[in-house]
Amino acid sequence: MLSMRKLILQLAVSLDSYIEGPNGEFDWCFTDQDYGMSEFFKRIDSLFIGRKSFELMMTMDDAAMPGFPKLTEYVFSTTLTEVKPDAILIKGNIESEVRRIKNEPGKDIWLFGGASLTASLLNAGLVDEMILAVHPIILGSGKALFSNISSRISLILTDTKTYPGGLVMLTYQTIIG
Amino acid sequence: MLSMRKLILQLAVSLDSYIEGPNGEFDWCFTDQDYGMSEFFKRIDSLFIGRKSFELMMTMDDAAMPGFPKLTEYVFSTTLTEVKPDAILIKGNIESEVRRIKNEPGKDIWLFGGASLTASLLNAGLVDEMILAVHPIILGSGKALFSNISSRISLILTDTKTYPGGLVMLTYQTIIG
Repeated sequence: MLSMRKLILQLAVSLDSYIEGPNGEFDWCFTDQDYGMSEFFKRIDSLFIGRKSFELMMTMDDAAMPGFPKLTEYVFSTTLTEVKPDAILIKGNIESEVRRIKNEPGKDIWLFGGASLTASLLNAGLVDEMILAVHPIILGSGKALFSNISSRISLILTDTKTYPGGLVMLTYQTIIG
Repeated sequence: MLSMRKLILQLAVSLDSYIEGPNGEFDWCFTDQDYGMSEFFKRIDSLFIGRKSFELMMTMDDAAMPGFPKLTEYVFSTTLTEVKPDAILIKGNIESEVRRIKNEPGKDIWLFGGASLTASLLNAGLVDEMILAVHPIILGSGKALFSNISSRISLILTDTKTYPGGLVMLTYQTIIG
């Protein structure tokens, strides 16, 4: 039996678990080196993104994301009626749609955000792995990575990597209860 | 010139930066081994604690804290009028009192909590070091370690230690701006 595609939450976070500053800032994210992203990109062929994050990305210059691979984009929204031509809009039951996509042949899937989609998928036990690039900063406020989590989620630490600039990459598997 | 005593925030946190569950639970904290505490205890001779955490500790059996060293306890409160005989009540201006204590001769000082005292001292730039025992769990709710932080705090990662059970000990110095 082929193993199912994994859904991987991979994000930069502050030490206090924010993914953006209070005004959407991500100027605190290290960009001086690759931080394992090119290795990560080899594992994936698809990306899950919530509506707000998708709309934010649409406003950004492609050049802002050097080395970003060609991925199948799944945009999760109950309000959008269309997305750009090469993306796939997921409007229906999130859980069943995600289970269906994870059962399709393919590489692993990057859960890119945002907070609402992440919470839904974590609460449904559909996130298999988390790779968090913990940056050496306390932001104090902003958009929290973990919000609306309905109950404890136990994790298995599978890797840690410390970079000279103080970034710590923590990799966890979720324990599906 | 003698170097000043350091104020060290040393705590167990969940991956989502909670120090207690929603009902004050700390059953998720690993207790199966020492996790560097006996080395840490050698560095310190005093403890800073907020009023709520102090009152919580007073309800606990001493036996619950094996290996807890004899420390000078400073209890920070604007409402208490007395504390137990061997503790010192700090009622006045927190910042000047903490500066005074840090300038006294002695070993380093453990900032034990709670959230309100921690926020005040972080915002005042009086916390020198943070040693966080990041546990492999998302609690989802509870008491947040970092709340009411008024502005960004940049950190320097000075040590990481990964334990077999998945606990990661992260040590940071704060950058006093």
